[in-house]
Amino acid sequence: MMVFDMRVTAESIFEIDDAENIYRAVLPESESNDFERSVVDISVTDTGLLLNITANDSVSMRSALNTWLRLVQIAYEIGEVSQPFFNEEYR
Amino acid sequence: MMVFDMRVTAESIFEIDDAENIYRAVLPESESNDFERSVVDISVTDTGLLLNITANDSVSMRSALNTWLRLVQIAYEIGEVSQPFFNEEYR
Repeated sequence: MMVFDMRVTAESIFEIDDAENIYRAVLPESESNDFERSVVDISVTDTGLLLNITANDSVSMRSALNTWLRLVQIAYEIGEVSQPFFNEEYR
Repeated sequence: MMVFDMRVTAESIFEIDDAENIYRAVLPESESNDFERSVVDISVTDTGLLLNITANDSVSMRSALNTWLRLVQIAYEIGEVSQPFFNEEYR
């Protein structure tokens, strides 16, 4: 598949409550260097998470976005599902 | 698959030359209402294309982003490949 150089930047904002825990869960992935053609930065904001990705082409952008949207979704779901076990009724 | 409501917005900037033609090629897709759980807006800027997507959850965001990144990539490649045929040597 031809890959044409086309610089792409994507800023994604997730409005979620449990941002700090999700951030800690996915942060190690940002330190792995699986993404040669893109750079990922994730941070916590007062309304949720901010995900910034810069890539050299839209194919690399799609790959990085897919991975990170999935990582955030999974971390979010685990938090939602496991929440009851941290509440009073299970202590 | 559980889908949790988690509002996500993504702003993607494509730094490309042929933005006006790519914009015209992909614009009809933004008028189709295939994306119930996300809203897509694409516009031309002085450095390329600006793609704004808002979605109710990250699964819908991934679907819309994948579609739109692919649409822009294909329109871009068609422009690159067909360019010689519009140049002097083929007239």
